[in-house]
Amino acid sequence: MLKVGLLGAGRIGQVHAVNIAGNARSTLVAVADVNQEAAEKLASDHQCEVRSVESILADPAIDAVLIASSTDTHSDLIEAATAAGKAVLCEKPVDLSLQRAKACLSTVSATGKPVMIGFNRRFDPNFAAVRKAFATGEIGKAELLSVTSFDPAPPPVSYIKVSGGLFRDMMIHDFDMANFLMGKRPITIRAVGSSIVDPEIGKAGDVDTAVVTMTYDDGRIAVIKNSRRAAFGYDQRVELLGSEGLLQVQNMLENTMVKSTAAGVVSAKPTYFFLERYMPAYIAEWEAFVSAVLDGADIPVTLEDGVAALAMAEAATESFKSGSAVEVSY
Amino acid sequence: MLKVGLLGAGRIGQVHAVNIAGNARSTLVAVADVNQEAAEKLASDHQCEVRSVESILADPAIDAVLIASSTDTHSDLIEAATAAGKAVLCEKPVDLSLQRAKACLSTVSATGKPVMIGFNRRFDPNFAAVRKAFATGEIGKAELLSVTSFDPAPPPVSYIKVSGGLFRDMMIHDFDMANFLMGKRPITIRAVGSSIVDPEIGKAGDVDTAVVTMTYDDGRIAVIKNSRRAAFGYDQRVELLGSEGLLQVQNMLENTMVKSTAAGVVSAKPTYFFLERYMPAYIAEWEAFVSAVLDGADIPVTLEDGVAALAMAEAATESFKSGSAVEVSY
Amino acid sequence: MLKVGLLGAGRIGQVHAVNIAGNARSTLVAVADVNQEAAEKLASDHQCEVRSVESILADPAIDAVLIASSTDTHSDLIEAATAAGKAVLCEKPVDLSLQRAKACLSTVSATGKPVMIGFNRRFDPNFAAVRKAFATGEIGKAELLSVTSFDPAPPPVSYIKVSGGLFRDMMIHDFDMANFLMGKRPITIRAVGSSIVDPEIGKAGDVDTAVVTMTYDDGRIAVIKNSRRAAFGYDQRVELLGSEGLLQVQNMLENTMVKSTAAGVVSAKPTYFFLERYMPAYIAEWEAFVSAVLDGADIPVTLEDGVAALAMAEAATESFKSGSAVEVSY
Amino acid sequence: MLKVGLLGAGRIGQVHAVNIAGNARSTLVAVADVNQEAAEKLASDHQCEVRSVESILADPAIDAVLIASSTDTHSDLIEAATAAGKAVLCEKPVDLSLQRAKACLSTVSATGKPVMIGFNRRFDPNFAAVRKAFATGEIGKAELLSVTSFDPAPPPVSYIKVSGGLFRDMMIHDFDMANFLMGKRPITIRAVGSSIVDPEIGKAGDVDTAVVTMTYDDGRIAVIKNSRRAAFGYDQRVELLGSEGLLQVQNMLENTMVKSTAAGVVSAKPTYFFLERYMPAYIAEWEAFVSAVLDGADIPVTLEDGVAALAMAEAATESFKSGSAVEVSY
Repeated sequence: MLKVGLLGAGRIGQVHAVNIAGNARSTLVAVADVNQEAAEKLASDHQCEVRSVESILADPAIDAVLIASSTDTHSDLIEAATAAGKAVLCEKPVDLSLQRAKACLSTVSATGKPVMIGFNRRFDPNFAAVRKAFATGEIGKAELLSVTSFDPAPPPVSYIKVSGGLFRDMMIHDFDMANFLMGKRPITIRAVGSSIVDPEIGKAGDVDTAVVTMTYDDGRIAVIKNSRRAAFGYDQRVELLGSEGLLQVQNMLENTMVKSTAAGVVSAKPTYFFLERYMPAYIAEWEAFVSAVLDGADIPVTLEDGVAALAMAEAATESFKSGSAVEVSY
Repeated sequence: MLKVGLLGAGRIGQVHAVNIAGNARSTLVAVADVNQEAAEKLASDHQCEVRSVESILADPAIDAVLIASSTDTHSDLIEAATAAGKAVLCEKPVDLSLQRAKACLSTVSATGKPVMIGFNRRFDPNFAAVRKAFATGEIGKAELLSVTSFDPAPPPVSYIKVSGGLFRDMMIHDFDMANFLMGKRPITIRAVGSSIVDPEIGKAGDVDTAVVTMTYDDGRIAVIKNSRRAAFGYDQRVELLGSEGLLQVQNMLENTMVKSTAAGVVSAKPTYFFLERYMPAYIAEWEAFVSAVLDGADIPVTLEDGVAALAMAEAATESFKSGSAVEVSY
Repeated sequence: MLKVGLLGAGRIGQVHAVNIAGNARSTLVAVADVNQEAAEKLASDHQCEVRSVESILADPAIDAVLIASSTDTHSDLIEAATAAGKAVLCEKPVDLSLQRAKACLSTVSATGKPVMIGFNRRFDPNFAAVRKAFATGEIGKAELLSVTSFDPAPPPVSYIKVSGGLFRDMMIHDFDMANFLMGKRPITIRAVGSSIVDPEIGKAGDVDTAVVTMTYDDGRIAVIKNSRRAAFGYDQRVELLGSEGLLQVQNMLENTMVKSTAAGVVSAKPTYFFLERYMPAYIAEWEAFVSAVLDGADIPVTLEDGVAALAMAEAATESFKSGSAVEVSY
Repeated sequence: MLKVGLLGAGRIGQVHAVNIAGNARSTLVAVADVNQEAAEKLASDHQCEVRSVESILADPAIDAVLIASSTDTHSDLIEAATAAGKAVLCEKPVDLSLQRAKACLSTVSATGKPVMIGFNRRFDPNFAAVRKAFATGEIGKAELLSVTSFDPAPPPVSYIKVSGGLFRDMMIHDFDMANFLMGKRPITIRAVGSSIVDPEIGKAGDVDTAVVTMTYDDGRIAVIKNSRRAAFGYDQRVELLGSEGLLQVQNMLENTMVKSTAAGVVSAKPTYFFLERYMPAYIAEWEAFVSAVLDGADIPVTLEDGVAALAMAEAATESFKSGSAVEVSY
């Protein structure tokens, strides 16, 4: 039984709390949050204690911490938790600063403690099926990857301002997805973007619509398309063209009803909310972490993976600003 | 080059005229119709002569006739044409009277001349693909066939009154489709029906919605669903469940555009008009007839097939009226 | 908090135990089963007591019982539980004997205690969407309903022998689905069937493939197709044709990956196992029961509904045996 | 009746000959080709004369010429034909040299004769439906366009060497499609590419896989993906994300059969051959040309459109070579 401390009681922390409780091999012991009210609510829902971060890290009865606090705390908490001998599952991104993330990686590597980064989409059964089909050679060699990732609606501009920008905040998932599906990392990145969805996002120095192309040392190409708005819901698709075929992931729909009338043939929309879309992935992600810690299974998403995705986001941001191709510095 | 006389210049006669002209191995020589104006219009469009039926049948330069006149003339014309040594392609149904159709079959068999019945749907590439997949064993043994056949809108009640009823006029296509796909004929037929689409159809002694179940000597079952109205277009589907899988034909859509908005995900409707849906089938049907006559290929839909479908329609009509199961008398 | 006793610790009892535990407003207090080992295993998994049926029914601290024992005990347990003042959720079917089920209904009605029958498919989001779309007039008046329900593989012949036959054991779900979607019950039923999947099933006096047609007092028609085997998985679809359109429920697939190669375009299969397909329905079913008992909401599937479906199964069985149409005796 | 001279009797010339003959308002009078045998074959099939280009252009009885000869002759023939007073439909691309094409445009503009460029895909009913839906505001403002265009198999390297390269030879269709769907032209183009399908293509100085991103003055973005090989067939799709929704064109399939077995759910592949995929488009294209000449309708694809697409291809080629973004010089 894995005894877990949860750092962060916000929306995503609450999701993890449910999954920690729902897993037969883990139990939630304590929660910490700067927002005392949120911490108490979560503790009450899950019958665990509210404690300080320090107290959790110092408790030898706690095996692992799940870091779901704000991004600017991630590197510090990863370092402190591993120093305290905890296994760590930390939400993405590792940091907004690539330099800080690399330092964290260097520090943590020395401890040898398991650190997993929460790129939940790797655990989605649909994307995992593509990875498996490609890995087992069903479409031959990879040639051209396309990732489509549209949010249903943009976050508030106040969030945009502290988000680190679309490439670090949103597309980072797609950078990791590309690494996951391709099994290798790109050399060069080109980014274009605009704030066509909401000019206020542009005024805040960010983009809401962006396309990134990436090239690989063996001639592969990948393209990622992001938009902060899709009027019809959460649009999450990939296409991987190989020498012997194409693998596609289509959207999951709210239901399987089809209505045909004189007005047309109408299907349900994609699931709108990311938690609805990816709940099975969050559950499987936690399962994988528990298995890595208790059974010694491989960490499926390492801190190095998290740093790599951040390095790609950094390169994309730089390319968008300069207008030129940028080599990724991993 | 097959020299063809066309008997009937109505809507379906005009379709055939285009296809006779479009086939490199056939030419339209003459047309006959009781409606002189229709005959002249068609002759002018296709640069052929208007003649009487007698003149066409008596002309030794004419190899084949295509019978597209009203149903009550079919048996007489088939007999006269084969007696005159012509190859015949006759529109469905052979007759409204099963007894008359059987007599026609008997008469014609003695002549040895090729007679083909116009069950065009056998030549539709989608249904033909099911037949081929089943025939090559891709789903094992046949167990349960389902045919869905909905017209977009009912014909005028005046037509209903002379049509012979839904089972002979509309479902006869589906009876032949069942025979085509199953490769064998049912023993017993049960029919239910109602005039729920239009009570006037009921007053005219017919139904507009009907379901027929058919049983076979080896335990197979087939079900046919008909409606005279589908608000969304022409609905033409089949499903064949076998011991190793299921074969389905889906509708052909007007185009492949999909529109996703907050209101839902909208695809195009099925093609609305039977000529749009089945034009490739009409062309392939004529091609098959030409090949049968000129190359000695097998007649793909025989007069006997036409009589069998009529016998099934007769049994269904009787079952609907009596409320009991009826054995088909082929 | 609803305190629940579970009668039956078999496969479906275990599913319900998880859902009782997972619902924030219900708790599993005790379990009873003639198989002591199964009861103890379930009690251990869910930290509840093993007790006798009598002890559970006599306990005033228990508010409700969930009957998941063998079918031959259902009527007796429903009567005993309601007499003891418990709310009841009982698995389908109510009984294999229509007469006994009617007597049970009569007895229970006098008590006024809430009894719900476990037709879980009503709670499937896909079928519920069809019901809602029809009820809100999106396709006008109902004309023709088609239910396709194929199991992935037949049960052992030993089970077939005690099952009450396909119509009572398997198609009963589809009879209830028809009543749910149509909002009214049929007058007359015709059934055909055969044992084409497995002749041993025929030797046991049952069928494995069947088609039932049903007629309604207003001219509607419904058709149900059942097979005990679909090589590709669990096939659960409905189609409701109305005066203004068609509503269809398609299968749920294992994932949304599509693979296109020279061999064709391959999608995932339908979910294979009924628990996988209907788990959300089981959860929503329990939620509805809890709400009916605690909040006084309407019972969404009444004992009368259970008796009606059984009456239809009885009529279908009789029609299959006699070969004639049978009027349903509700 | 439009009297037409055909310049070029190769594969695409033969397609046009059939469509000229099939249109009730046009007739094929003469054909010219440097390959005398090809010209004679086509003339025999369509009962027209073989003549020299000079003779055709000098014949006052000929109203229009269709230029389907090799690309290096296009500009010269367009100029000569318009100078001779003919209406012109010329296959794409206008030229391999942007400079030459611009000179041609300048020369031809002075004559005032109608010149149409054969971007057949604009006439495809599926793409046309997207254009119409967007133009009528069904998805609000355009934000992000994605064009996927994969050939089934690469042409011989000998063809690659004289093709002008992927951007001019293949992607030029997609540049025009972007202009057609967007209703405006991009400012800046970035291209990446590789010869991952066939290294021999790389040795010939070309790429076989490429992604181009384009930016617009109002913040829109477009991305085009090309591959010379898709093992499953001809892959031709677009997606246009707007402020209120998404429009997608899916592939046309060989048939609508779906086969479900234990191995999966298999649909037909996309049509493999471009003539099969786009035959309706070629027919509609010719219809539009005839209508433009005879009825004075607008030329739907102008010579200027042809030059614009070539300018984009030139910019893409330059961007690929330099690795930098290139502003398009229209």
